[in-house]
Amino acid sequence: MRLVVALGGNAIKQAHEKGTTLEQFLNCKRTARLLAKVVQRMSPNDRLVITHGNGPQVGNLAVQQDMAKEVVPPQDLDVLGAMTQGQIGYMLQQMLDNQLRDLGLKVPVVAIINRVQVSRDDPEFQDENASKPVGNFLTEEEVRELKKKYPNYIYKKVKPGEGRVWRRVVPSPDPIANVEAEVIKRMVDAGIIVIASGGGGIPVVLDPDGHHRGVEAVIDKDLAGEKLAEVINADTFLILTDVEKVKLNFGKPDEKPIDRMTVSEAKRYLKEGHFLPGSMGPKVKACIRFIEWGGKRAIISSLDKVLEALEGKTGTEVVPD
Amino acid sequence: MRLVVALGGNAIKQAHEKGTTLEQFLNCKRTARLLAKVVQRMSPNDRLVITHGNGPQVGNLAVQQDMAKEVVPPQDLDVLGAMTQGQIGYMLQQMLDNQLRDLGLKVPVVAIINRVQVSRDDPEFQDENASKPVGNFLTEEEVRELKKKYPNYIYKKVKPGEGRVWRRVVPSPDPIANVEAEVIKRMVDAGIIVIASGGGGIPVVLDPDGHHRGVEAVIDKDLAGEKLAEVINADTFLILTDVEKVKLNFGKPDEKPIDRMTVSEAKRYLKEGHFLPGSMGPKVKACIRFIEWGGKRAIISSLDKVLEALEGKTGTEVVPD
Repeated sequence: MRLVVALGGNAIKQAHEKGTTLEQFLNCKRTARLLAKVVQRMSPNDRLVITHGNGPQVGNLAVQQDMAKEVVPPQDLDVLGAMTQGQIGYMLQQMLDNQLRDLGLKVPVVAIINRVQVSRDDPEFQDENASKPVGNFLTEEEVRELKKKYPNYIYKKVKPGEGRVWRRVVPSPDPIANVEAEVIKRMVDAGIIVIASGGGGIPVVLDPDGHHRGVEAVIDKDLAGEKLAEVINADTFLILTDVEKVKLNFGKPDEKPIDRMTVSEAKRYLKEGHFLPGSMGPKVKACIRFIEWGGKRAIISSLDKVLEALEGKTGTEVVPD
Repeated sequence: MRLVVALGGNAIKQAHEKGTTLEQFLNCKRTARLLAKVVQRMSPNDRLVITHGNGPQVGNLAVQQDMAKEVVPPQDLDVLGAMTQGQIGYMLQQMLDNQLRDLGLKVPVVAIINRVQVSRDDPEFQDENASKPVGNFLTEEEVRELKKKYPNYIYKKVKPGEGRVWRRVVPSPDPIANVEAEVIKRMVDAGIIVIASGGGGIPVVLDPDGHHRGVEAVIDKDLAGEKLAEVINADTFLILTDVEKVKLNFGKPDEKPIDRMTVSEAKRYLKEGHFLPGSMGPKVKACIRFIEWGGKRAIISSLDKVLEALEGKTGTEVVPD
């Protein structure tokens, strides 16, 4: 098995939490305990690569940049993305390393700084198309207040209903390639568990002079995770989130969990609007891409069901037609 | 040649700059251009590992945490260290990768998240001993103002003379071991240029239950760099700073550059107070440790003289007795 696991936001910060260092370490510990069990079941030739989101963390960093801007120069969004790779990478790395030691497993784990290439012509770079939520969920009133302070920020309603259903959004261009592909391949070959492409990777464009340059965006971590799965020639791509299965008619009275869908069915459901953009939408899209690329298993399930999902006992699996 | 290069603060941010993203990228570009020339002169079996400081960056992050603390939970100092490994690692990685491409060199480069173990009993954890400067140089008046806002911070005078000679200081425990030693060895064996131990590494202690846990400190990057040099079995350890040679009687009318000193001489000069603590002091100490461990060459010189220093044409070399 060559496995890529994409961790959702709840693996690092729960929606109801403020995001203190302690809270985040405890979440990472719970996550690491589950991942260590996955490693325990792997054979010596199996490989694991982990990726993760960074929405709340990059949102918080952006707020801090703004609030201190008279004293300290605010850093660009690509640099903030790199900072969250350091922050979250450290917490996951330390917690997983500790849990592996507890199980007597001597497998080296490390987080790397990882860039993902996007196109400067991606439509997401036009404000009206920007679609990636960052930071906390907000009420309409909070959005009105924030708009006064940060007139350049874009806010959109990202959930049906009332209350905390708004979030700040930034451009979310489509990932083209993982820039550290060669590094990651060599590390995986050397038996290292790599934490890579954190927060969807640091978004960069390739300039005509052959240089990479960072851009102000946040790439979807599941779509970037799919590119990562291609890099290590993965057979299994597992997206962990806060629901056990993907649902048809999500949020409606007749919502219905899906055990398995073909690529064609998944595409049709996506088109029919069953899955929320910026949430379940890109996860299903990432699974479709992985199977179409040639991957064997693409599964969406919840973090606490990771072992059962890998055994095929739960989760939603996307399969070839 | 197995070389570890330790980059000083001026490789990333010049003292007179505020530290905008653009300024820091341009400094990293200049640094990367020089390092790429070092790589160009290496043979295929030679290895390079890079480390760097994070004083101004972690200082800025700490200020941002405090200024936004009513809105966003401030992260602990170990996490801030991890963030700067992401931030600086990204900038150096991208700039070096670009410069290597310009020279037609296909050598993979990557920054990793890297922890360094310290002892909970280190005397630096007592306030009066805390010795590591972080953040910008400050005037006595600025310190008075900051003291009102952040009463728990410790400020010390770190340079002789008047004006901007004060800085915030934090505990700077002695590095015991690089926690990612196994990871780094495997990466270096796989031919990857690794950027590691950034900012002296993320300081962690080993708890009695065998778990690593972050602590609020900043490890000296040159002393941690020396541990890194041991990890990769380096023969050459090169510390780059803003002066071409170490000086006897630094800052005095009779100051005199040193071309070469034995370990015994270096120890004597250190004891006699020729080198500033938190500045040249730990650099000389790191060189002494490297030679005593069994390293061949330990050199201190300026960034722009990196090629000449490696050729033995300039810099201060510490040699065995």
